[in-house]
Amino acid sequence: MRSVSIVGIGQSPVGELWDRSLRHIAYDAIAAAMQDAGIETADALFLGNMLSGALLDQEHLATLVADFCGLRGIEAAKVEAACASGAAALRVGIMAVASGLHDVVIVAGVEKMTDTVGKDTTAGLATAADAEYEAIHGVSFVGLNALLMQRYMYEFDVPMDAFAGFSINAHRNGVNNPNAMFRRAINEETYRKAPMIATPINMMDSSPVCDGAAALILVPTERARQYTTGHHRGPVQILASASANDTLAIHDRKDPLFLEAAYVSSQKAYLQAGVTPDDIDLFELHDAFTIMAAMSLEATGFARRGEGWRMARDEEIGIQGRLPISTMGGLKSRGHPVGATGVYQVLEVVQQLTGEAGANQVPGARVGMAQNIGGSGATIVTHILGV
Amino acid sequence: MRSVSIVGIGQSPVGELWDRSLRHIAYDAIAAAMQDAGIETADALFLGNMLSGALLDQEHLATLVADFCGLRGIEAAKVEAACASGAAALRVGIMAVASGLHDVVIVAGVEKMTDTVGKDTTAGLATAADAEYEAIHGVSFVGLNALLMQRYMYEFDVPMDAFAGFSINAHRNGVNNPNAMFRRAINEETYRKAPMIATPINMMDSSPVCDGAAALILVPTERARQYTTGHHRGPVQILASASANDTLAIHDRKDPLFLEAAYVSSQKAYLQAGVTPDDIDLFELHDAFTIMAAMSLEATGFARRGEGWRMARDEEIGIQGRLPISTMGGLKSRGHPVGATGVYQVLEVVQQLTGEAGANQVPGARVGMAQNIGGSGATIVTHILGV
Repeated sequence: MRSVSIVGIGQSPVGELWDRSLRHIAYDAIAAAMQDAGIETADALFLGNMLSGALLDQEHLATLVADFCGLRGIEAAKVEAACASGAAALRVGIMAVASGLHDVVIVAGVEKMTDTVGKDTTAGLATAADAEYEAIHGVSFVGLNALLMQRYMYEFDVPMDAFAGFSINAHRNGVNNPNAMFRRAINEETYRKAPMIATPINMMDSSPVCDGAAALILVPTERARQYTTGHHRGPVQILASASANDTLAIHDRKDPLFLEAAYVSSQKAYLQAGVTPDDIDLFELHDAFTIMAAMSLEATGFARRGEGWRMARDEEIGIQGRLPISTMGGLKSRGHPVGATGVYQVLEVVQQLTGEAGANQVPGARVGMAQNIGGSGATIVTHILGV
Repeated sequence: MRSVSIVGIGQSPVGELWDRSLRHIAYDAIAAAMQDAGIETADALFLGNMLSGALLDQEHLATLVADFCGLRGIEAAKVEAACASGAAALRVGIMAVASGLHDVVIVAGVEKMTDTVGKDTTAGLATAADAEYEAIHGVSFVGLNALLMQRYMYEFDVPMDAFAGFSINAHRNGVNNPNAMFRRAINEETYRKAPMIATPINMMDSSPVCDGAAALILVPTERARQYTTGHHRGPVQILASASANDTLAIHDRKDPLFLEAAYVSSQKAYLQAGVTPDDIDLFELHDAFTIMAAMSLEATGFARRGEGWRMARDEEIGIQGRLPISTMGGLKSRGHPVGATGVYQVLEVVQQLTGEAGANQVPGARVGMAQNIGGSGATIVTHILGV
């Protein structure tokens, strides 16, 4: 099995990109990544996307995007795993290069969630849940997460504003990310006054509906240097990649407050990379809702059960903290264009490991982790990268 | 790179399965394949599907199906490439095993196109075309193929009933396939009298809207025998796997009557397998419309430009012919549950190579090919299998 490295990255700004259609947003990220790696074509494009069929009446999406980018005659396929589609596409790209079937692979994620005509984005997002056992009852995706948060607060005796620290940290970091959707800091008062969406999840607990695309160029590690010679940045190696699933419906889980799939995929990743949680210099986690950030920290081995939120309160998650998270704004501030998010996370780990994170640079970062969550924890993909 | 073999197959009947939801149909195929290979779990499920988001309000589909099949803690992802989703998922499964990342992989394809509530299946199928440049004008998928067929007839001076032989052959073979949707023979009169759908495509030129699922179990070839010891069937090796794309919109192609992506992917496949078209004992091609069958035979090297239809007229495509095609009924008679079709095709090649094709057995078949087409030729995946 060949080791795989990342030699190029590209992203579009995240936001309500009303003057760009899906194909344009994807092009912006892919063209930038190709230029970054100094390549003019590739063997394959694997594209993470969740909602193009439900919201845009467009499938056959990877070939559409490849065509629009001038990439003809290559392999192209869309990979879907709800909000984990981006990292799932990266898994496929890694397999393609690791197997020797391809030498130069583009992995991208794209989502267009705003400005959809005659479609309901909230209903679209609910397709990540079980249509016949969850969504049919009218529960939205934020509603499912609200049930989890409520139970967590009850079970572990945690007050509502215990989660504020995640949101404050994300917004603080987003200020310095030119591609972030929300580039303004918030404080505890902002959090307290935020309007409620689905009790106890308020506007500041929740990531936004938005558009965006990100792209990575993968090559075999043994050939990576030839793409980065004379470049401002060296290659970043993928040290581990693991995916695990759980029951789709939350009510089928033994313990709804423990992200079993995060535990399994992170344990596999630690083993593959030969590291422990102590070796991780930064962690791009899936803070679609603050409750998910807390639960991810617990299942992944950084905090004890019921105590993930303490890391935010104690400011351990800042750029200078014990475990910096959401270093470029996370899903809350950079934004959460769902099928693209997993690729943005890995791209930001690359920025940190190559010293390109600007004002948000984690000092001396050598090993970074990204974790992308689909549904309310049913598909969880963990990547560890190193330089 | 590890060689990959197929050690188990399973399928649901194809048809209007009104008493089975998507998850049940997928389960039927996956459970049968797992039993066939004698396995109780797997490392991953890669699921080909095109329309669950557009027609069933269900994404996160692979984890849903894995969960329903009792496959928890494994990797699961949906792969979408329009009507080539099944073969695109097989490509990912092959990469997973070839790379060494996984040892036992389930590749399945599933589609539920009938009995959808408040959704338009014809509009769903049009999502394989370009929403902004083709579908927006109101053209349906059969409409696009009708334009191709009309141009073909004009360009090569071919009469309308020249295509009848493809349909007659498919229906003749479907009679003996217990899982085929249409198990009745037709003749030239049936073809001539068939109602017109989109001139010149009539009902007998066109594959049906239907439900179905098929599954394959992949393992490294070096371990394949341990799954088939004492079994009625030995493993079947995947000799070649190649995918190529073309412009999504037909009007962007230099020559709309030549399937460039079929040419590229089949040439790559011949090279990988070390064979020529003469070595292929049977060919499961993508006869979604008779015009696609003719164009596939031409681009893949079995017939000259404008002459693919002659192979049907001259009865070269029957079970005893020079190149048997659609041996279990093809898309026309077995049926075309779009995201599942590519997996059905490969499953049927396995049946032929292991002598399990019953009354439709191609005598002495050793090397078989399958070709799955997405859109009107924009994604084309070719597999060659051997024993």
